[in-house]
Amino acid sequence: DTSTGVASYYWQGQSTASGERFNPSAMTAAHRSLPFGTKVRVTNLRNGRTVVVRINDRGPYVRGRVIDVSRAAASELGFTNSGITRVALAVMN
Amino acid sequence: DTSTGVASYYWQGQSTASGERFNPSAMTAAHRSLPFGTKVRVTNLRNGRTVVVRINDRGPYVRGRVIDVSRAAASELGFTNSGITRVALAVMN
Repeated sequence: DTSTGVASYYWQGQSTASGERFNPSAMTAAHRSLPFGTKVRVTNLRNGRTVVVRINDRGPYVRGRVIDVSRAAASELGFTNSGITRVALAVMN
Repeated sequence: DTSTGVASYYWQGQSTASGERFNPSAMTAAHRSLPFGTKVRVTNLRNGRTVVVRINDRGPYVRGRVIDVSRAAASELGFTNSGITRVALAVMN
């Protein structure tokens, strides 16, 4: 189920699928299907760190990847070195 | 994998497998194998709420159940009415 899987992160690019300028320091993320504006808690299953991101972009289009978070989110989650990690996703409601 | 599954909660009982008195208002939980004292982030996959609990008891011994949290933790996670929910577990390190 899509509530867990691999997360990656990105820091380049100017615009997002939502039309917003991409800001690598914002707590945002790309997801294949969740509506723009959805708040999602992302928990790094390797160290228990957690953030809430706002979906403002589409992707990642790599099998097994469930979310692509901004560099700022990846840094708080503690996986900027490895570049990917296993996460749990939970829509905030 | 055991990083996600169903959680339940409990509020009765005097002693825990670790020898500590059970306190339903403490942020503690029972797990089948994690060492006593382990800190685990529990995220309710239904609403994104999250707590960190300390393992001080053993159980639950019900197939598919991965953790049994105290009433206080269940209340913060927002599932005291339903009694069970799907969670993600991440050991804090």
